[in-house]
Amino acid sequence: MEKIIINQYKRPKLKDPILIGGLPGIGNVGKIAAEYIIEKLKMQKLADVFSQYLPPQVFIDDEGVVKLVRNSIYYKKTGKENDLLVLVGDFQGTTQEGQYEISHVILELAAKLNVSFVYTLGGYSTGKIVETPRVLGAVTNTNLLDELKENGVVFPKGEPGGGIVGSAGVMLGLGKEVFSMNGACLMGETSGYFADPKGAREIVRVLKGLLGLDLDLADLEERSRQIEQITEKMQEDVQAKVSQKDDLGYFG
Amino acid sequence: MEKIIINQYKRPKLKDPILIGGLPGIGNVGKIAAEYIIEKLKMQKLADVFSQYLPPQVFIDDEGVVKLVRNSIYYKKTGKENDLLVLVGDFQGTTQEGQYEISHVILELAAKLNVSFVYTLGGYSTGKIVETPRVLGAVTNTNLLDELKENGVVFPKGEPGGGIVGSAGVMLGLGKEVFSMNGACLMGETSGYFADPKGAREIVRVLKGLLGLDLDLADLEERSRQIEQITEKMQEDVQAKVSQKDDLGYFG
Amino acid sequence: MEKIIINQYKRPKLKDPILIGGLPGIGNVGKIAAEYIIEKLKMQKLADVFSQYLPPQVFIDDEGVVKLVRNSIYYKKTGKENDLLVLVGDFQGTTQEGQYEISHVILELAAKLNVSFVYTLGGYSTGKIVETPRVLGAVTNTNLLDELKENGVVFPKGEPGGGIVGSAGVMLGLGKEVFSMNGACLMGETSGYFADPKGAREIVRVLKGLLGLDLDLADLEERSRQIEQITEKMQEDVQAKVSQKDDLGYFG
Amino acid sequence: MEKIIINQYKRPKLKDPILIGGLPGIGNVGKIAAEYIIEKLKMQKLADVFSQYLPPQVFIDDEGVVKLVRNSIYYKKTGKENDLLVLVGDFQGTTQEGQYEISHVILELAAKLNVSFVYTLGGYSTGKIVETPRVLGAVTNTNLLDELKENGVVFPKGEPGGGIVGSAGVMLGLGKEVFSMNGACLMGETSGYFADPKGAREIVRVLKGLLGLDLDLADLEERSRQIEQITEKMQEDVQAKVSQKDDLGYFG
Repeated sequence: MEKIIINQYKRPKLKDPILIGGLPGIGNVGKIAAEYIIEKLKMQKLADVFSQYLPPQVFIDDEGVVKLVRNSIYYKKTGKENDLLVLVGDFQGTTQEGQYEISHVILELAAKLNVSFVYTLGGYSTGKIVETPRVLGAVTNTNLLDELKENGVVFPKGEPGGGIVGSAGVMLGLGKEVFSMNGACLMGETSGYFADPKGAREIVRVLKGLLGLDLDLADLEERSRQIEQITEKMQEDVQAKVSQKDDLGYFG
Repeated sequence: MEKIIINQYKRPKLKDPILIGGLPGIGNVGKIAAEYIIEKLKMQKLADVFSQYLPPQVFIDDEGVVKLVRNSIYYKKTGKENDLLVLVGDFQGTTQEGQYEISHVILELAAKLNVSFVYTLGGYSTGKIVETPRVLGAVTNTNLLDELKENGVVFPKGEPGGGIVGSAGVMLGLGKEVFSMNGACLMGETSGYFADPKGAREIVRVLKGLLGLDLDLADLEERSRQIEQITEKMQEDVQAKVSQKDDLGYFG
Repeated sequence: MEKIIINQYKRPKLKDPILIGGLPGIGNVGKIAAEYIIEKLKMQKLADVFSQYLPPQVFIDDEGVVKLVRNSIYYKKTGKENDLLVLVGDFQGTTQEGQYEISHVILELAAKLNVSFVYTLGGYSTGKIVETPRVLGAVTNTNLLDELKENGVVFPKGEPGGGIVGSAGVMLGLGKEVFSMNGACLMGETSGYFADPKGAREIVRVLKGLLGLDLDLADLEERSRQIEQITEKMQEDVQAKVSQKDDLGYFG
Repeated sequence: MEKIIINQYKRPKLKDPILIGGLPGIGNVGKIAAEYIIEKLKMQKLADVFSQYLPPQVFIDDEGVVKLVRNSIYYKKTGKENDLLVLVGDFQGTTQEGQYEISHVILELAAKLNVSFVYTLGGYSTGKIVETPRVLGAVTNTNLLDELKENGVVFPKGEPGGGIVGSAGVMLGLGKEVFSMNGACLMGETSGYFADPKGAREIVRVLKGLLGLDLDLADLEERSRQIEQITEKMQEDVQAKVSQKDDLGYFG
């Protein structure tokens, strides 16, 4: 079999499309952001990507119907300067080879669709709960810095220290070196301990500004508030226990 | 070498054949069921499949003759609406890539033989001994649900939680997405602790109904009774020990 | 690069050649036997096999010269019924895929040289030191059993239990299924704890009979005696220590 | 995608060029030496090598710009007998297959550029801090020994015991067996515990002699002195603690 199989369902004419990649990763921040954009913009599916670089697995929906694990690309004619393509999926490629191969195939398809710019979305693990997550950036070219900074993206020196591992890094790297595409990675801060809508919210806010999208953030803000309440509750419980221990300590 | 080598021994003309796949897996339920069907229907071997995705190993029979590990396909002209193909084997593909490649090659061969429907058989691990195993199902299309339910297959929401991993899942998934084949997975409940004929018996019973097969279940019922006696004996022994301990506990 | 590179140095016309494979394995029994035959028959190198399925490594000889790890094939015009080819090497393929690919390439070359019979040599681990190692056999065809039994090879039912894993098994298996070659595996018993010339000696003795080779076993017998002395000394030391402990035990 | 992608930026006419390979490894000795030569000779980049045999990762520089991990080849027209090519990189191939494939691709490119001799640089781990590191050698041909010995390279029998694993070995081995290139490996002794400029300095000193290069060693000597001071300080601290313990011991 082909190592990667693309089932392309639609062949729309897109105007200077921009590709946004949001696969599962740290805090699932990139995936949550990308799926939110697909839902809110009512994007249509362009293609499914099946591959032996993904787990040999089907999911089963509530009706009992199987769904082979996949990556999928959605599109939207925005009526603005740039049409949109968004990549989401159940998994990233599970091997080093798979990371490169899947990224390359997606970029090849993107190049055929005249994509010349790629945003990759990801999480940046802080290891603790963050009140107001920053969006860290990395770019293929310094001339992209100003526009991103104006939209709230920060570029702290030495962060992330180890660079970017996985799809969000490889798509930018191969895009730049092999496909002459520019691009930027947007990394929303997250504790990394659970699927985190707060980092995703900040990324979507940045993309809304950068791309001039009509995007209602209300649902993502609501989900962020719910997560905040849960984590605050957990922290209170922990503190209660700690102070209880302290109290008991006096009698210990 | 070719990564997968098919030695096809027969080229029968088959009438609307259905493929049943029963490779080793949880409780070996699928394999036991598939081998039982081959034996009882006196099916003939159509092809052997050798592959570097299987262990580099030969088995040795009682006469001292080596047998390279393999998957094999058997066929039967049933004289009914659908002729039958059954896939069995010593191992599933041992890598993610192997899972996809072997499933794809089998489906390719099946497509050439005009197969348009695939049953995959497997076990569903309950982690405890089950009196009367259910047969859980998953399908490629909702229009298949009614017939399966009428034959005793159940579709509990959210089970199996992680979907179906391995050959039983990938063959359905690739069948649907790449070969436009419909299909269903039948999963017999099993503790998962030993090769379990009871789950296999329930699957064969379901298939007998679905396909209108002349299949005598007596041998499989006998093997199930034997297993039941062994496990009941084990449970009695365990309970005896537990109550002994309890008794001693009073004097402890 | 080609995954396997064959550097063939000679193109002799061989008369009904038989291939003997002795790669490293349990107790290095097969390798010791094969290298002994090459040395004693003053065989000439026919080809080197380099491959990315072998470790990325060079050895350095006493003069400081590097030697890329390899498998090698030697040949000998025996002047008898069958000319000889012997396969030896630094390693077996290190992956499942490598095991199949290297075996396949060797058999392909052998087929071009008109080989129609393959002996593979290996060790059979007994887990304890064996006074007089047996040579266990496995064959591709029952009509080979008599000649082997007449030459001292034994075929105990159910041994080896797990079949034959690795090159010695795969070469027979692929030989039979893909190249229509007959063959036999000769397994010399060994503790498996060290490189063991005793099992190798027994294999060479069997091959000498089977192939009518002029082979002086003296050196291999000498090396076997040395190993016996070492292991006897070790056993005496252990027993001395044990009885010392026992003695001390009385005073403990 | 191609498993290895070469972006070649320059096509200079080189005079009998020699290739020097210094990828990351033990004590990073080879990489430090190779990068020092590139810097001091103001070498120009000839090509970048990207590959799925390298980690799926980008680094981020201080400006926020991503850099896909790579190997790179630099060149220099020396005006002497031999022009120079130097290979450096972020990683060696991460798998056995990758080690062979990347080495093969580099040698293929080198062969096109008429390279007929390869030096590979590496570290030789001594497991302790070495006052004056030796440079150990290994060659493809005994006729290379004299010139290397005259330049201070040593060839102690049985060292390194396990041969040379990785790029420094495979490039020599494939060079010799597949590309008919001669070559030598230069291994600078190092504790192996940290990136070690002292072993690198000794290698550069040897290469300076062998190739008649105008190379100022001052910076590397300065970095070696700094490392020496740090390690001496650490040793003094350890000894102080040990003797302190001894002193206290008298009162213990």
